[in-house]
Amino acid sequence: MLRLGIIGTNWITAQFVAAARETGEYSLTAIYSRREETAQKFADETRANAELFTNLTAFFASPAFDVVYIASPNSLHAAQAVQALNAGKNVIVEKPMVTNIKQMAGIDAALKANPHLFIFEAARHIYEDNFQRVSKFTHTHPISGATLTYMKYSSKYDAFLSGKNPNVFTTTFDGGALEDLGVYLVYAAISWFGVPDKANYSPQILRTGVDGSGVMHFDYPDFSVNLITGKTTQSYLPSEIYTGRDTLTIDAPESIQRIDYTTSEDTVDLAGAQDQNPMIREAAYFAKAINTGDTTARDEKLLLARRVHTVMTQIRTDAGIVFSSDQD
Amino acid sequence: MLRLGIIGTNWITAQFVAAARETGEYSLTAIYSRREETAQKFADETRANAELFTNLTAFFASPAFDVVYIASPNSLHAAQAVQALNAGKNVIVEKPMVTNIKQMAGIDAALKANPHLFIFEAARHIYEDNFQRVSKFTHTHPISGATLTYMKYSSKYDAFLSGKNPNVFTTTFDGGALEDLGVYLVYAAISWFGVPDKANYSPQILRTGVDGSGVMHFDYPDFSVNLITGKTTQSYLPSEIYTGRDTLTIDAPESIQRIDYTTSEDTVDLAGAQDQNPMIREAAYFAKAINTGDTTARDEKLLLARRVHTVMTQIRTDAGIVFSSDQD
Repeated sequence: MLRLGIIGTNWITAQFVAAARETGEYSLTAIYSRREETAQKFADETRANAELFTNLTAFFASPAFDVVYIASPNSLHAAQAVQALNAGKNVIVEKPMVTNIKQMAGIDAALKANPHLFIFEAARHIYEDNFQRVSKFTHTHPISGATLTYMKYSSKYDAFLSGKNPNVFTTTFDGGALEDLGVYLVYAAISWFGVPDKANYSPQILRTGVDGSGVMHFDYPDFSVNLITGKTTQSYLPSEIYTGRDTLTIDAPESIQRIDYTTSEDTVDLAGAQDQNPMIREAAYFAKAINTGDTTARDEKLLLARRVHTVMTQIRTDAGIVFSSDQD
Repeated sequence: MLRLGIIGTNWITAQFVAAARETGEYSLTAIYSRREETAQKFADETRANAELFTNLTAFFASPAFDVVYIASPNSLHAAQAVQALNAGKNVIVEKPMVTNIKQMAGIDAALKANPHLFIFEAARHIYEDNFQRVSKFTHTHPISGATLTYMKYSSKYDAFLSGKNPNVFTTTFDGGALEDLGVYLVYAAISWFGVPDKANYSPQILRTGVDGSGVMHFDYPDFSVNLITGKTTQSYLPSEIYTGRDTLTIDAPESIQRIDYTTSEDTVDLAGAQDQNPMIREAAYFAKAINTGDTTARDEKLLLARRVHTVMTQIRTDAGIVFSSDQD
């Protein structure tokens, strides 16, 4: 049983803890929060017999857990991942693992110093069966393009509009649509089509300097892919992958329930059943890799993460979006 | 009854002639084609008692018609429109009226010399009731963005893939996705949201130098709009206009049959019935303007066309797409 420590106590952490427990491979044993009441509340709500921490150094120094799940604000992910590795912990870090590809050097160094440890970016969607069904499709059909969309009105946007600055809408916390939602699309595009030859991002910039929405354009030798993301509007658009005159329609790249393959003759549903909790597959995958010492799986996923964030950093900085952490 | 002459004898001309007749305002009296058999065949198929021409100068010199409908290859539109005006003919010219905004100077000069004449770009969709329902919506709601798509696998693309160079896929004839299909989206965006502050186009360039597909990004002060077009893939995506957390979904900007307004509470259908032939409204509008001498209508639509093609020329040339006619 892996003993799990968590940083962050919001809904995504609750969802991950539920998924982790459902795999039968994890037990929640340590909770870090800046405020003890928050940690206690999370422990109560999840009925966890866990040690509570309000000091991050003490948390990482504790022998109470083996694996940390990091769901802090984006700007803290990379530094906390490095800190965790150097404290001898395995790491599951929420997307984005890094907000500037330069931060990967710190992770590489920490991993080199602790080569037996594991680090995974919690790109949950790529571990799901339907995502892999689409991968199988794209790797066995000639691709002629794609339009992928993940655009959702943020629960924090009303606060932003009223003049407040929620973390996810600030450059201080490395927020914005690309890092929060666009990352799902970049993972999908690179998994399904490979690394693009050229990529650009045309964002809508908000008053805080982050991107509220935008469209990415990825150029491949024989086709191109458009990726639409946003946190300021609500889209119901499905996504499409084109092959010749045929079209694969998926309901949502970040959580695929439907995969319809439409030819001139008919439409066939290629999807399988989807887990209730979309984080189960990743939690199971990470546990298996850690438990079996499968560093090949770790390195393969880390290479994918590196490719994703190389593109993300390039298109973001080309678009003139500057994060506080870019200066580090 | 307006006496109609036509340049071009393909499906779009047949559709326009049918629409024009259905309005009861036009009679087909002159047909130009490079080959007499083609002109004769069109006359037979449309049961028109029309004079046939294979020489364009003779065609324009003929008193057999008052209004010309121009549906030649894109690269010929502007020059033929000027020629027609200078021959004393009213002009209905297919999209794009011009393929470089510089060509508008010739049209302006010809119109100045013949101020009683009319010229309209056949942007058929903007004349339809449902298009105007959307206009009314966008002009009475705060807009927070839009994603519009018109992407259709061209009937000529198989020939292109087999090594041939159909006109619509060449820079010689000012072809490509932006000029052929994207123009519908630019008309929609400018009609619904106004002229953008900034605009760019990220195309997929084919071997002939034209754009097979691409995405436009229009920046407005408070929101941005993404326009997806293409002739090399088949999309079934609807289009969306965002207002706050609500979403207006339209099935297809170029021919709107459904307008669904989705709020957190419910979805309401705002669409009205659509004509069988989508060119009837424009044909009726042009006839009425010409018959009543409504130069205000002419100038208003010409201003819109100027705005559309100013943006089209800028984004196309910025994207490095060079037409033969750019040199003129």
